[in-house]
Amino acid sequence: MTQRMLFSILALILFPSLASAQAADDACVACHRDRTPGAVAQWQASGHAAAGIGCADCHGNDHERIEQGAAKVDADVCGACHEQALREHAASRHGIGLHSGWGCTRNQAQADPEACGFCHQEQSTLPVSTVHCARFLKQTDEMREVGCNRCHQVQNSCASCHTNHQTDLAIVRDPGVCASCHMGPDHPQWEMWQTSVHGTLYQSSGDAFAPTCQRCHMPSGTHNVSGGLTATPGGMLYPEAQRGQSRKQMVTVCAECHAPAFARAELARADAVRTQGRELLKEAEAIIHDLADRNLLEPMPEDRPPHPLAGNQLVTGPQMLYEDISHVERLFFKMKKFDYAKMVKGTFHQNPAYAHWYGNAELKMDLVDIRSEASRLRQRGAATVQTNAEDDPLAAAEGELLILKKKFERGALDEAAYSEQKGLILERVR
Amino acid sequence: MTQRMLFSILALILFPSLASAQAADDACVACHRDRTPGAVAQWQASGHAAAGIGCADCHGNDHERIEQGAAKVDADVCGACHEQALREHAASRHGIGLHSGWGCTRNQAQADPEACGFCHQEQSTLPVSTVHCARFLKQTDEMREVGCNRCHQVQNSCASCHTNHQTDLAIVRDPGVCASCHMGPDHPQWEMWQTSVHGTLYQSSGDAFAPTCQRCHMPSGTHNVSGGLTATPGGMLYPEAQRGQSRKQMVTVCAECHAPAFARAELARADAVRTQGRELLKEAEAIIHDLADRNLLEPMPEDRPPHPLAGNQLVTGPQMLYEDISHVERLFFKMKKFDYAKMVKGTFHQNPAYAHWYGNAELKMDLVDIRSEASRLRQRGAATVQTNAEDDPLAAAEGELLILKKKFERGALDEAAYSEQKGLILERVR
Amino acid sequence: MTQRMLFSILALILFPSLASAQAADDACVACHRDRTPGAVAQWQASGHAAAGIGCADCHGNDHERIEQGAAKVDADVCGACHEQALREHAASRHGIGLHSGWGCTRNQAQADPEACGFCHQEQSTLPVSTVHCARFLKQTDEMREVGCNRCHQVQNSCASCHTNHQTDLAIVRDPGVCASCHMGPDHPQWEMWQTSVHGTLYQSSGDAFAPTCQRCHMPSGTHNVSGGLTATPGGMLYPEAQRGQSRKQMVTVCAECHAPAFARAELARADAVRTQGRELLKEAEAIIHDLADRNLLEPMPEDRPPHPLAGNQLVTGPQMLYEDISHVERLFFKMKKFDYAKMVKGTFHQNPAYAHWYGNAELKMDLVDIRSEASRLRQRGAATVQTNAEDDPLAAAEGELLILKKKFERGALDEAAYSEQKGLILERVR
Repeated sequence: MTQRMLFSILALILFPSLASAQAADDACVACHRDRTPGAVAQWQASGHAAAGIGCADCHGNDHERIEQGAAKVDADVCGACHEQALREHAASRHGIGLHSGWGCTRNQAQADPEACGFCHQEQSTLPVSTVHCARFLKQTDEMREVGCNRCHQVQNSCASCHTNHQTDLAIVRDPGVCASCHMGPDHPQWEMWQTSVHGTLYQSSGDAFAPTCQRCHMPSGTHNVSGGLTATPGGMLYPEAQRGQSRKQMVTVCAECHAPAFARAELARADAVRTQGRELLKEAEAIIHDLADRNLLEPMPEDRPPHPLAGNQLVTGPQMLYEDISHVERLFFKMKKFDYAKMVKGTFHQNPAYAHWYGNAELKMDLVDIRSEASRLRQRGAATVQTNAEDDPLAAAEGELLILKKKFERGALDEAAYSEQKGLILERVR
Repeated sequence: MTQRMLFSILALILFPSLASAQAADDACVACHRDRTPGAVAQWQASGHAAAGIGCADCHGNDHERIEQGAAKVDADVCGACHEQALREHAASRHGIGLHSGWGCTRNQAQADPEACGFCHQEQSTLPVSTVHCARFLKQTDEMREVGCNRCHQVQNSCASCHTNHQTDLAIVRDPGVCASCHMGPDHPQWEMWQTSVHGTLYQSSGDAFAPTCQRCHMPSGTHNVSGGLTATPGGMLYPEAQRGQSRKQMVTVCAECHAPAFARAELARADAVRTQGRELLKEAEAIIHDLADRNLLEPMPEDRPPHPLAGNQLVTGPQMLYEDISHVERLFFKMKKFDYAKMVKGTFHQNPAYAHWYGNAELKMDLVDIRSEASRLRQRGAATVQTNAEDDPLAAAEGELLILKKKFERGALDEAAYSEQKGLILERVR
Repeated sequence: MTQRMLFSILALILFPSLASAQAADDACVACHRDRTPGAVAQWQASGHAAAGIGCADCHGNDHERIEQGAAKVDADVCGACHEQALREHAASRHGIGLHSGWGCTRNQAQADPEACGFCHQEQSTLPVSTVHCARFLKQTDEMREVGCNRCHQVQNSCASCHTNHQTDLAIVRDPGVCASCHMGPDHPQWEMWQTSVHGTLYQSSGDAFAPTCQRCHMPSGTHNVSGGLTATPGGMLYPEAQRGQSRKQMVTVCAECHAPAFARAELARADAVRTQGRELLKEAEAIIHDLADRNLLEPMPEDRPPHPLAGNQLVTGPQMLYEDISHVERLFFKMKKFDYAKMVKGTFHQNPAYAHWYGNAELKMDLVDIRSEASRLRQRGAATVQTNAEDDPLAAAEGELLILKKKFERGALDEAAYSEQKGLILERVR
């Protein structure tokens, strides 16, 4: 309290213009005390109020624009005072590429160069649109707002974590504040931390003895939340140099409690688990592309509503959809976006149940289902093809060559393997 | 403590008969202090004990009936003193239509009039049975008790929230008290609140600055928990007038913190999401009924154990079962009872992960699976029909007319559309 | 604090050698204060430090071995001082048979004697290997470590619950400490307790008035956590005498708050639910074995990578895998390990949503899917067999006799039933 009062006095000395702002606030508060009593009470108890930062300082004076929702208090408004925080925020994943799915294609060290075309015209670094997430583009306006932007606005909205009118640091130091976005089937970081030894220790002993989201990912209070990370959200590794630097940073944090060698070994184990998970994904993805080569997906991409970014193409990469696809692709979507994420993040966050049961086991069970569905689709396909093969071996070979060509064209076979396998088919009908 | 003692003295002045009850309690306590020490300790620390309300006041004096479980302390026992609370409770969803599945058919503004027959004989408003939930009727006695009645007894049991012997209001002001029923795959209100901005703010800052279940749904401490709601649990809208009134009530609550215009817009967005969700359900439901028209469900309703209320009919409405059905119906059950609920309630409770990933995304993925299963079933059916069509076009047309008639009879086609489509088939074989 | 100091002085009197240990610790701390400040701070605030128990007392003096991870502080190190705790721990499930899957085969009253061969050579009680869990054996080294051993090390690691350097009993009295293992799809005891009336009461009122994991499963602070349990983790009942004793023990705990008759009835209800759940499992298991008899699983066991313990056999018992199996088996794995566990444990833990929705409902929905998949597989099989039956009734009967023989050989038919059904087939072709 004394500290706050001191701060207020200092603020008034440093920014004498605040005195007139105070007058404006009196006008706002007179009315809003009745209209939005909670918001007013929160501001009154805040450090902003104590320092003489009033309504108009953030919202401006144009009441009409405010009412139309046009006078948004975005990150730039906060950054005018909180310069360092904004700079750090802007350098993190929170600040780059999360606005409505940009994260899917930006910020990826080893991104497919073709993916650049989703956002940029050739030879240009300017984005051609502000939204580049295929899943976003498929939703209704309402679902986009509540189901996508509510989290992906973090780039522009400090209120995502700090809430609108309160300045109490207890709010943003509570790991719960991260939960409202970092939860759910696609990235349950909060759930896996909460039930890990780290989280349960925090629950019983407080953050003096237990790591929170903030302590590991925002060391020394930095707003750059991506410090110790070595891969993109999609699991693509950053370049070696950047990766080494990031790992070093994270080990420094772990070493507050653990022996550095132990920390390095644990993190290396999680790296290995990530690689193993990607191998399982690759196997499943190859099955789906093979089915597509054989025209066995149902429906085939050409018989579906076009993908918002790729048209009537099969998309199994970062821009994969979960709707208007075939059953086997939907199984792969779960593997890739839900199971793999749980296995990898569960390992990094030291949660056995997420690493194994929610992650590894589901990943492998989905692979069982994908193989089974593929087998069913192939058998149905074979029923036709086999008859052909008996009646007309030449036509059958022609079909096989076409499938092989597709495989080669999508980059799953190199020149030599293509030519060898082509040879084997031709030999058979010679 | 002083306050409690004052209350005791006041109680003794107002209800002199309590003095003799106290004597009876001494007899109970003498024995139960050893037999159920926890219950006795809870009562002793309660406002009831402080006010001289003893064992016999609620349980009666007939020890034999108590031991047989026949002297239940139900809502009427509590209501004898707590009149207003019981009146408000009785006027809410908690008080009407939740007893073992009544909620499914009662309290629905736009209920199918035929559904009335589940509970009432024609022209009568008296229920013919106390249990009208088909899913309840399929369970064992044990599962009915622990899996259904444990929550659906709320109509008659104040202990559902207040627990048996404690009167501490801290218990019922904690949002956790709602969790023991309002959780799980069919209505995870607690989970979605807990991880929303509202819930996480409550965790870090307490309920002075953050809304709890109670603050929004029991404003001013009312026991009518259904105040601001605009639709039945099944998602059917209440009549316009009632709906407008309810919405106004809820906006008043939101306005404690938010601008009313903002609150209205957020609630309207959730209304839109509900409508969008219902459209997805309708598409899936139509696929299933079409399969039934074509005799392609496996097993068909006539080959299953009869539905407890509808016999050998296909039931996809509120009384739908999750057992003894076909695979495609089971997918629809998940859509309808789990995914749709998460999408809609997740939006109203401002939880992006529930609205989008647990709700919208699952809903659309299940639709992918339903379309795929339907395609598989139709192909198998077509294998037979096509042969027929080539051999005997007249018989094939006859089959199609029969399917069309079923569709008309179940109300999915109006008179004009039926007649037009009939004409097209007949023309083909003329 | 005073108590701690008293303890320190007492300890120094009783163990004068501690004075020199203190000197050694000074050397450790001098360096580790910078290298692992958290660990040092935790130890310094611990009862161990207060009692003069230093680094070397647990870790030894061989720094090289420590750095290599060879000087593990396992249960024996702790047990040297904490004798009674270790004895109780060793007598519980925590102490026997949980090390990397031993739990699956050991400790089962009615275990299949053949299963003994997984661990023992004939006539020997010595284990032949330290690892006997088929699911463990299928994982990578990294997943074994983080996904299996992290929990199953509890036999040898007191730190599993107590953490490494803290001795604060608040940590191990918090139910959260159990969560880091007792959670997830296969045994969500923590989740179901947390949202049960018991858990929510603990949240609002503390453990004076609400039962925690510890209060029911570790009464009077015993380290034998298996006291009141009546069945193995796999749901097999213990022998009658042991079971009766255990139940009595648990009722004593319940009776701290509830009438014993009420507690007995609730526990008996859960017993009944367990039996009902096992019936559903049996139905599903029989379908799978029948499919195997008919060579209809895809892939059949002989076409899969061999099971680590049983080779190319169909395994649906405790050593069942979740990978390299058929789709219908994977559905059964979910039923058995996830749904059944939730239904039974949810009932014992008084959680309606786990008993009914996560348990009973999922169990029955999976049965719907298993029946549907079996029907699909049988139809495909029938397509071939029926043609045979028409062409060659003798060959068809031969096929049926073979299937019947397999069913008899795996014990699903007794001598009389086998002989009767054989007779019926033979009569048909006579």
